Amino acid sequence: MKKTLGILGGMGPAATCDLMEKIVALTAADRDQDHIHILADVDTDIPDRTAAILHGGQDPAPEMIACAGRLRAAGADFLIMPCNTAHYFYDRIAAAVDIPMLHMPRLTAAVLREAGVKKAAVLATDGTVRSGVYAEALAGAGVEPVYPGPEHQALIMRLIYDGVKGRKLPLADIPVEDILADLRRRGAEKFLLACTELPIAFRELGIREDCLDPTRVLAFSAVRFAGARTAVPDPW
Amino acid sequence: MKKTLGILGGMGPAATCDLMEKIVALTAADRDQDHIHILADVDTDIPDRTAAILHGGQDPAPEMIACAGRLRAAGADFLIMPCNTAHYFYDRIAAAVDIPMLHMPRLTAAVLREAGVKKAAVLATDGTVRSGVYAEALAGAGVEPVYPGPEHQALIMRLIYDGVKGRKLPLADIPVEDILADLRRRGAEKFLLACTELPIAFRELGIREDCLDPTRVLAFSAVRFAGARTAVPDPW
Repeated sequence: MKKTLGILGGMGPAATCDLMEKIVALTAADRDQDHIHILADVDTDIPDRTAAILHGGQDPAPEMIACAGRLRAAGADFLIMPCNTAHYFYDRIAAAVDIPMLHMPRLTAAVLREAGVKKAAVLATDGTVRSGVYAEALAGAGVEPVYPGPEHQALIMRLIYDGVKGRKLPLADIPVEDILADLRRRGAEKFLLACTELPIAFRELGIREDCLDPTRVLAFSAVRFAGARTAVPDPW
Repeated sequence: MKKTLGILGGMGPAATCDLMEKIVALTAADRDQDHIHILADVDTDIPDRTAAILHGGQDPAPEMIACAGRLRAAGADFLIMPCNTAHYFYDRIAAAVDIPMLHMPRLTAAVLREAGVKKAAVLATDGTVRSGVYAEALAGAGVEPVYPGPEHQALIMRLIYDGVKGRKLPLADIPVEDILADLRRRGAEKFLLACTELPIAFRELGIREDCLDPTRVLAFSAVRFAGARTAVPDPW
C-alpha cells in the first residue's frame, strides 16, 4: 500500500505544476495505478514569503499550517512544499501537524554529501539566500556554500525575474557561463539551482553539467517515501 | 472572493499536470495571489475507465465519487475531471455531490457552437469514441461529428500509444495531414483533440490550424467559473 503525498502548493502555482510533472516523470509506471496518490493544495491565499522574511510582511505560517491540516484531513500521509523560501517556516509547520514533512534543502544537502561534494554554489533569489535555508541545510550536511559576488548575484536575479518570469530579456544576454566559471574558481564543485525558475533557464540555455535541481531531489524523494519505484536510480 | 476548484485527477496523472499548467498559464496574474485556489486529488486508485466501459472491468464510479466527496470536504466549490473518457460516468458523480461539476465535452461542444461550427472531427481513442461522450455532447450543441475511417482511426491509435505514450515511433511517421485532409473533404471544419495525448503530438508536429483542445477549454472555463480573469479572450 503506497503512502498518499500531500503538497503544500501555490508558492507559486507554476512551481507546483513543475514539481508534479517531475514526480510523474520520475515514477516507474506502466499504468495510472502504478503512480502515487497525490493531494495538491494550490493555496494561493498564502501571503508572500519573501515579503514576510525581508520586509515584515504578513506572516504566511498560519495559512500554511491551515493548508497542512486540510491535506492531513483529506488523507495525506506525508507532506512536501515545492518552494525553497517557504522552508524558512518549516519548523513551525512541521510542529503543527502529526505527519512527516520532507525538507527540500536538507534532502538536497544530503544528496551532495552522498556524492562526496565539499563545496557547492547556491544560485537563488536574494530572498532565499537571506532566509538562510540553504546555509543551514548545507552546514548540517558538512557542505560549504559558495555564493555569487554582488554583481553576479544581481545578474542571477535578472535571469530569474527579467529572463524567466518576465520574458523581457533573452536568457543568453546573461553571462551564466562566466558566473559558473567564477564560482568554480572559488571551489564550487556543484551548482544548486535553488530557485524554481533556474532549472527552466538552465534547460533553455543547455547547461546541465554539475547542476542539481532541488525540486527534482524533492520529487525523487517523495516517490521513494511514498513506497513507489523511481524510474532512475538517483536524482542527478 | 474566488471559488476554489477541485480536480478529480489521476486519469492519468500526466493529464492532470497538463491541465493544471494550462490553468496557470491561462490566468491573468501578476502575483501568486491572483491565481485560483486549486485542490487536486491525483487519485491513482481509480480503476481503468476504458477497461470498465469496453471490457466489463471494475466500475470506477465509486472511487470517483469518493474522490469528489473528499474534494468537497476539503473546501472545493466546484469540480472538473481532466479525462475525456471519464465523462462516461459524469451523471453518476454529479448526482452524488452537491457542488457543480463542469463537463469538458459539453463545454467544448458549446465553444464550437459559438464559433458557428456545423461539423467537427473527433480525434480520440477507440474507448472515448465508443463511450459516446462526444457524440452526445456535440448532438446537444447541434454540431455533427465526423470520425476517421477504420484505417485512419487505427493510425490515430498508433499516434497516441506508440508515438506519444510509448515513444517508440517517430510522430512524423503517421500521415496526420492526410487524415485531416480526408476529414476536411468529408465536411469537418474543426478538429477536436479529444485525447490528452493529442495536443502533445500536434504541438510537436507543428499542426495548430482549426484544432480545439478540450483540456484547454476546460482550463479556460474553470478559471472563469472560479471568478478569475483569463489571460486570453477565448480558449482557441
